[in-house]
Amino acid sequence: MAEEFFDCEIRVRYAETDQMGVSYYGNYFTWFEVARTEHFRDKGVIYTELEEQGYFLTVVNVDCTYLAPTRYDDLIVIRTVIDFIGKTSLKFTYEVFLKEGMRKVAEGSSSHVFVNSEMKPKRIPEEVCQILSH
Amino acid sequence: MAEEFFDCEIRVRYAETDQMGVSYYGNYFTWFEVARTEHFRDKGVIYTELEEQGYFLTVVNVDCTYLAPTRYDDLIVIRTVIDFIGKTSLKFTYEVFLKEGMRKVAEGSSSHVFVNSEMKPKRIPEEVCQILSH
Amino acid sequence: MAEEFFDCEIRVRYAETDQMGVSYYGNYFTWFEVARTEHFRDKGVIYTELEEQGYFLTVVNVDCTYLAPTRYDDLIVIRTVIDFIGKTSLKFTYEVFLKEGMRKVAEGSSSHVFVNSEMKPKRIPEEVCQILSH
Amino acid sequence: MAEEFFDCEIRVRYAETDQMGVSYYGNYFTWFEVARTEHFRDKGVIYTELEEQGYFLTVVNVDCTYLAPTRYDDLIVIRTVIDFIGKTSLKFTYEVFLKEGMRKVAEGSSSHVFVNSEMKPKRIPEEVCQILSH
Repeated sequence: MAEEFFDCEIRVRYAETDQMGVSYYGNYFTWFEVARTEHFRDKGVIYTELEEQGYFLTVVNVDCTYLAPTRYDDLIVIRTVIDFIGKTSLKFTYEVFLKEGMRKVAEGSSSHVFVNSEMKPKRIPEEVCQILSH
Repeated sequence: MAEEFFDCEIRVRYAETDQMGVSYYGNYFTWFEVARTEHFRDKGVIYTELEEQGYFLTVVNVDCTYLAPTRYDDLIVIRTVIDFIGKTSLKFTYEVFLKEGMRKVAEGSSSHVFVNSEMKPKRIPEEVCQILSH
Repeated sequence: MAEEFFDCEIRVRYAETDQMGVSYYGNYFTWFEVARTEHFRDKGVIYTELEEQGYFLTVVNVDCTYLAPTRYDDLIVIRTVIDFIGKTSLKFTYEVFLKEGMRKVAEGSSSHVFVNSEMKPKRIPEEVCQILSH
Repeated sequence: MAEEFFDCEIRVRYAETDQMGVSYYGNYFTWFEVARTEHFRDKGVIYTELEEQGYFLTVVNVDCTYLAPTRYDDLIVIRTVIDFIGKTSLKFTYEVFLKEGMRKVAEGSSSHVFVNSEMKPKRIPEEVCQILSH
């Protein structure tokens, strides 16, 4: 079975660069978040609606490996895969490409737990689990 | 009567620079926010406690004039003055100095309204108003 | 003559919210920057190319008035007008709308000076000036 | 031999929170950067001077595990250890504590390579290597 992925395009903002002339390393995690939201939306899951229903997707662990820099105004592609989905947890993997030539410049992952507003783990709604698993 | 001010020191972070090699212009508003919090703390008003009591300080208007750049690792001083305090509103003015030599590099202001959690204007508690006025 | 504007769509990121549940006030200036870049691109001026030619667009003064909050996942429209263009300077005005219903939620402006890499004012190239004026 | 660490205090800014009411996960990497700078300064190495001499500390890999949330106005302690120092590379580990009670709330690491302004690996100056190793 082919692994299902979602590609999200982002243009690097001036605010996201640093004085080394490249994108600041911490901003990749913001891009991962944007890619997660759009991956969900692509599947019909609106993250804001999950929060309105009392589900919050906290982050447990993240990592990122930087292969080559990205720069201001670069059009990048964040390729997201839902790597794992359990009863209360979820893991995404990410690959970042420069759109021109689709050269991979970074890769990473993030592990999450669904919690309620008191930050206690909460089982993912069955329908959402079904949608995200396919 | 001498105008009362509060000086807050901040060191410019690498994350706050951009590829021009200077601090990104939007970050000054983050620094203004840090300076407001510390000005309040200096007077004995803890902003988190205000929020716990249902008072939120929204921003209505801001401006900033940039006289000279600041750079990574610069130690800067944000001088804050409570310019005006009304029944539900508050105005701060800010001057930004490079600590070394106290050369002024920027100045700005922010106008605020206290609101409740539904974003409706809410009268500042009398005791807070008293404290902030003196 | 009708005033010429450029509309740039931006979706509010989770990273851009704060604990008040709305977009943090300083982020509007990042959005203004994105809108400027796209306004330039729409006219055929690539800002990165200007920097490569030794022209840097520094910010001299900004302001923003917040009429209503924006929130995570809101699709907003930044309407940019080049308000003024002189020999070395440039002024933009911005209006921010919620795309749904095009309700105005903020407005602001930014004044800029073109400088060289030593931060000295530098005359805008004639052809760029021509393009931006029309 | 006791492992040598450096403790850097940071107060969580309002700008660093998100609508979940906690610090946004990507900001921990900004704090790690601040802690690295201060660790270097504590040892007598000024990172800006390294850059002026043509040494740039790029990031190759990072990770972070979040054990408990941090919130606006929390005073946190970033404990930094130089875990490894090679000819061109460097690894830091970090532990994040809430200062009150010194409860650990996160931990992470970052691996770096020193490069020149063309982003090619560059051997760390011997004296800096000596200083950082002790």
